[in-house]
Amino acid sequence: MLGSTHGTLTTDSRRTGVVACGGQPAPAVHGRPAATDDLDVSGRPLYAGVPDLDRFFRPESVAVVGASDAEGRPNTGITRQLLAWAGRVGARLHPVHPARESVFGLPCVPSVTDLPEQVDLAVLLVADPLPLIEQLADAKVRFAVAFASGFAETGAEGAAAQERLAEAVRRSLRRSGPRSGLRLLGPNTNLNAFEEFRDDLEGPAIALITQSGHQGRPLFALQELGIRLSHWAPTGNEADLESADFISYFAERPEVGAIACYLEGLKDGRSFLLAADRAARRGVPVVAVKVGRTGAGARTAASHTGKLTGADAVVDAAMRQYGVVRVDGLDELQDTAALLARARPPAGSCDGVAVYSISGGTGAHFCDLATEAGLRLPALSAAKQAELHRWIPEYLDVTNPVDNGGHPVGDWRGRRIIDAILADPAVGVLVCPITGPFPPMSDRLARDLVDAAEETDKLVCVVWGSPVGTESAYRETLLGSSRVATFRTFANCITAVRAHLDHARFAAAYRSPFDEAPRTPSPSFRKAQALMRPGSRLSEHAAKQLLRAYGIRVPREQLVTSAAAAVRAAGLVGYPVVMKASGARLAHKTELGLVRIGLTSASQVRDTYRELTDTARYEDVPLDGVLVCQMVEPGVEMVVGVAQDDLFGPTVTVGLGGVLVEVLRDTAVRVPPFGEEQARSMLDELRGRALLDGVRGRPPADLDALVEVVLRVQRMALELDGDLSELDINPLMVLPRGQGAVALDALAVCR
Amino acid sequence: MLGSTHGTLTTDSRRTGVVACGGQPAPAVHGRPAATDDLDVSGRPLYAGVPDLDRFFRPESVAVVGASDAEGRPNTGITRQLLAWAGRVGARLHPVHPARESVFGLPCVPSVTDLPEQVDLAVLLVADPLPLIEQLADAKVRFAVAFASGFAETGAEGAAAQERLAEAVRRSLRRSGPRSGLRLLGPNTNLNAFEEFRDDLEGPAIALITQSGHQGRPLFALQELGIRLSHWAPTGNEADLESADFISYFAERPEVGAIACYLEGLKDGRSFLLAADRAARRGVPVVAVKVGRTGAGARTAASHTGKLTGADAVVDAAMRQYGVVRVDGLDELQDTAALLARARPPAGSCDGVAVYSISGGTGAHFCDLATEAGLRLPALSAAKQAELHRWIPEYLDVTNPVDNGGHPVGDWRGRRIIDAILADPAVGVLVCPITGPFPPMSDRLARDLVDAAEETDKLVCVVWGSPVGTESAYRETLLGSSRVATFRTFANCITAVRAHLDHARFAAAYRSPFDEAPRTPSPSFRKAQALMRPGSRLSEHAAKQLLRAYGIRVPREQLVTSAAAAVRAAGLVGYPVVMKASGARLAHKTELGLVRIGLTSASQVRDTYRELTDTARYEDVPLDGVLVCQMVEPGVEMVVGVAQDDLFGPTVTVGLGGVLVEVLRDTAVRVPPFGEEQARSMLDELRGRALLDGVRGRPPADLDALVEVVLRVQRMALELDGDLSELDINPLMVLPRGQGAVALDALAVCR
Repeated sequence: MLGSTHGTLTTDSRRTGVVACGGQPAPAVHGRPAATDDLDVSGRPLYAGVPDLDRFFRPESVAVVGASDAEGRPNTGITRQLLAWAGRVGARLHPVHPARESVFGLPCVPSVTDLPEQVDLAVLLVADPLPLIEQLADAKVRFAVAFASGFAETGAEGAAAQERLAEAVRRSLRRSGPRSGLRLLGPNTNLNAFEEFRDDLEGPAIALITQSGHQGRPLFALQELGIRLSHWAPTGNEADLESADFISYFAERPEVGAIACYLEGLKDGRSFLLAADRAARRGVPVVAVKVGRTGAGARTAASHTGKLTGADAVVDAAMRQYGVVRVDGLDELQDTAALLARARPPAGSCDGVAVYSISGGTGAHFCDLATEAGLRLPALSAAKQAELHRWIPEYLDVTNPVDNGGHPVGDWRGRRIIDAILADPAVGVLVCPITGPFPPMSDRLARDLVDAAEETDKLVCVVWGSPVGTESAYRETLLGSSRVATFRTFANCITAVRAHLDHARFAAAYRSPFDEAPRTPSPSFRKAQALMRPGSRLSEHAAKQLLRAYGIRVPREQLVTSAAAAVRAAGLVGYPVVMKASGARLAHKTELGLVRIGLTSASQVRDTYRELTDTARYEDVPLDGVLVCQMVEPGVEMVVGVAQDDLFGPTVTVGLGGVLVEVLRDTAVRVPPFGEEQARSMLDELRGRALLDGVRGRPPADLDALVEVVLRVQRMALELDGDLSELDINPLMVLPRGQGAVALDALAVCR
Repeated sequence: MLGSTHGTLTTDSRRTGVVACGGQPAPAVHGRPAATDDLDVSGRPLYAGVPDLDRFFRPESVAVVGASDAEGRPNTGITRQLLAWAGRVGARLHPVHPARESVFGLPCVPSVTDLPEQVDLAVLLVADPLPLIEQLADAKVRFAVAFASGFAETGAEGAAAQERLAEAVRRSLRRSGPRSGLRLLGPNTNLNAFEEFRDDLEGPAIALITQSGHQGRPLFALQELGIRLSHWAPTGNEADLESADFISYFAERPEVGAIACYLEGLKDGRSFLLAADRAARRGVPVVAVKVGRTGAGARTAASHTGKLTGADAVVDAAMRQYGVVRVDGLDELQDTAALLARARPPAGSCDGVAVYSISGGTGAHFCDLATEAGLRLPALSAAKQAELHRWIPEYLDVTNPVDNGGHPVGDWRGRRIIDAILADPAVGVLVCPITGPFPPMSDRLARDLVDAAEETDKLVCVVWGSPVGTESAYRETLLGSSRVATFRTFANCITAVRAHLDHARFAAAYRSPFDEAPRTPSPSFRKAQALMRPGSRLSEHAAKQLLRAYGIRVPREQLVTSAAAAVRAAGLVGYPVVMKASGARLAHKTELGLVRIGLTSASQVRDTYRELTDTARYEDVPLDGVLVCQMVEPGVEMVVGVAQDDLFGPTVTVGLGGVLVEVLRDTAVRVPPFGEEQARSMLDELRGRALLDGVRGRPPADLDALVEVVLRVQRMALELDGDLSELDINPLMVLPRGQGAVALDALAVCR
């Protein structure tokens, strides 16, 4: 669908946040359709095409360059596997080798220029794929896969070789246009895309993306547990095609229920966001392990795939902004992706979880952990409890968890209980932890749960607690059902159910920030640009003028260079005043004694002017003058700033000021573009959030004004992207509700 | 060993913190042996006996009261199981039933008074065990097990019945003495103690304690994975014998490598601490799931076993003080207990973890998570790397993780690599994640790891990443070894390895706080007692006198009741002064405007006296006077306090003052008795800890003085336990290093 035509967006689909991308309309911007060349005000794309990977995964004809049938050669095994795969997908296979007449009985051509037909896919089993790129492009081959290693994963020399490969692909794309040009997977990839997938499994499938092929093995093995897999993209070094391309493509495949990713690095931040946006618009969950939680891991990851590992907190925030579920272990990736692929969105958005068990202890234990993880376990109504007590002895607690004491699961009552719980409108999810297998009870319980799950839209989960895992109730009954989500641990069940409910909530409310991202500079931009001093740091006064240009309130203030002017300025600003030494290279003003507050008279102002300039001289700090500022009443001190991320560009941070930001680093970060709701959600991430709501009888702070400042700072970050490398408002004094927020001090560094 | 004689402690064993309890010397206190009736100054025991449960687990003769062989009766199945068990342990079984001549061919007696011999154990299969207790005691039966339910787990009426049962047991114990009296397990327990344990498994065993029998099933099933289990104590409602008794007993059994507990509530806080102390002295790890993370779970847990669930943070702290490893899931309990049972303490305390994998991605991923969890992954030395490169291609990274690229594991090189890593003195633990099974490689890798583990003292861990788990390398090779610790997830491997290293560190440094707990009141006690006002809250002034009695510094201050006296007091205290309205029912003084600081002259003091008394009259606050206090220079504001925990009695809390304690609840808690090291470790738990070390150029605070205050507050909490219900020093101003700490305000509530 690369370069496809773009339709307009209906009001309805915009309201629901779901865009019918299958029919190829691209995201619209203010009623105008986004086009391939649409850029936001910072010059970053607002749209990414989806490569038509149908021809990659289901080609009609395949060339194998370097094919072999000589015993003992590694390429022989690979050729054999490709032959088998071609047979399964119905593709014609053409061996290419300069020195062979035939391979496994198929006629062999000496080079790709001799291919008997235009092929969709060329698998390159050669040590140096570079010389082939132009030939392949000339032969109108759509996709190439490069197995060779020794590129960016090995160091600087390999990275240069990889760049030459990437440049060759870009050159061919420029020549032939993105619609028909050659796309490359790899180098340093493998056969994973061409594995034998089981086609007898039911239900929506997981599509898998891995940068390290080996790390995808456990997910591929899920098929042995009855979970359907549709695709596997081993992206390797991503010289051309990257994870984002596959996310976009998989998000539009009807058989894909969820996309599972194992990511070591992201090639391009914006591509990833646009792909995640596409999945979010379509409501397709993306679950990802992203290595790089720590510096140590990141170091190794970089050496493995030769790609940039972004600062982890920024990656984390970016993923959350687009509903990507980040998990840590491959087991969580398996269990969460399997649940998200197969579970339907909760009926009526009901997020109530009911826990049902044959042991009170088991139910209590599960509830304890589930509640702590933020799941909602509503008490069942008195009527429902009375109904359950028709089958469960009176002395057992059926409030939620429902404890049946064991015996009822062994007979006809078991199914009645399950159905009665599922029929409760307060219940969206039923979890049944089966802690120990006791065949007279657990076999029937498993069967009843599987049968009940067939007849409900609600999510039914089972935790099979036995560590053995060879029991038939587990292997055959539970894993045999595509409607029951089966787990081995409480933790993974809770993680997956939470991800499911969170994602459903997210998808229902999702509005793409790209639809509303600014494309043209605001009127503030010209004013701001005039203030920039390339390569240097602005004085506090200049930085505040920058803020003022973007409509952010600063105190009334004047920069003066004499005591007399200071007194005049104080009269204009209004007493009491604050006086601060001002200079471009001035940091730690307070510690140096270069800030004085609460000055109430002309004589105090005059004396203070002299003291500040004397102190600065003594400390050998060059000044451009002294600021005489309006004294702002107390509020909640916050920090709002802009930093640069290597992967995503400018990011916006908000934090609690003073000791909280310094000692606890209590901050939240977002990657632009983001809307008001995201700005507001940043505040909820702060541990010290209660300060904004008012503590010790203090009034609640003006949250609207704070959010407005965050959004204006975002606008600055985007419009001044080329000019501004850092911005810090510290403190931003957020006054009581209705009274606004004032930037008391600011720091800006120009590029 | 109940009521055993007590030997003295050698100097050596005290230094290592390990007491030879097997030989029955009990913990010594200041060189004096602890005795059964030793109490600390608060009246709590310093010693708990260990019931001689040998006769419970391995009785010579057993009575089954309510035995049956009639088809269809539940008791018949139970009798049959008990018969089989008696056969296995070599016990004589005596059926007891009023209406039967024989049961399963064994002669039956009508009542326990008719038993042909003194039995060690009576299993009571009757609905009401109460009437039997006296008879059993008279018959000198050592242990009884009550299966009946319907006691505390069902509500108030059941709790009363349980209390009658408990009282009957206590009565018999009083009569016959603890050495020979009847002990009761249950009610509401089951057959778990008498299951068929596998006796063909090697290595140290897990001993299991569960309050809910069903929750122990997965741990019992570990035997099917080759993990040895030695005992299972299903403690049920704990009317008499409690989890603590079994922890103490298991800690002294030579075959027990670790104790695994599933706890819903603790019957008695002190019993638990003394049992955990015994395990800590002997270096036996205790791993526990303790339900009650949240209120919801706690509610259900209470209704399940009818026991008190203590505030979770206090339970958490108490467990950490005694090295009990707390985990959340039963899967973590299994994996952690299995590792701790079987792993030897790291040689030379080496906590370096080396990661070895056949995929760079897998190694990087594991390292990322392990490093984040606090494991130390040292870079291997250049010499070691050169050695590894004899078998591993040069372009692969062998720094740590060691990536072998796959092929070397398939031949003779595989074992050499493993041995070379294990020979490195920087490595204490080797972890090999096998992400996907590929038999030509992974089968040999598994075999090599098992063989290498036989020849090293170091810990060898494998993570078998395939979710299938039926592969023979996993089932046979890895699970067949008692020397390799095999996991299914990165997370559980990391949790267990951390627990192992942390516990080894803990055990090596452990000193029992009971050895140094105060037994007699300090000279401060009398002074303090005179200040207590039963049932009421002390004024600030009185509370500060209490602190002063315990040697905690307070500002110079005087309580005055006239303006003239205030001026005189200020002269004595020294200008500048602080003035505060004082009254027993006075809270929120600052908010009410009843505190004035920085008063520098007699006239200011006189005016302030009038303003404060006027304001108090206006606010209708009765005063006992006005405090004129020395003004203390600024430092770090902390909070130190005492609260009452239902389970453990008084607890001591320390936190950062001001906004940090109010908004972030940044506090640490400990259960007395604890020593200086624990007091110091409380500070490390504070998120805002850096404030104490000095931020923004402020000097580091006087940590020694702060720790001393915490210890003095602990002493107060213990000595005044019957009189003081709450104490808060807020703020405690901790001055720069060497200058001490001053309690600026205090609140004390008497019982």
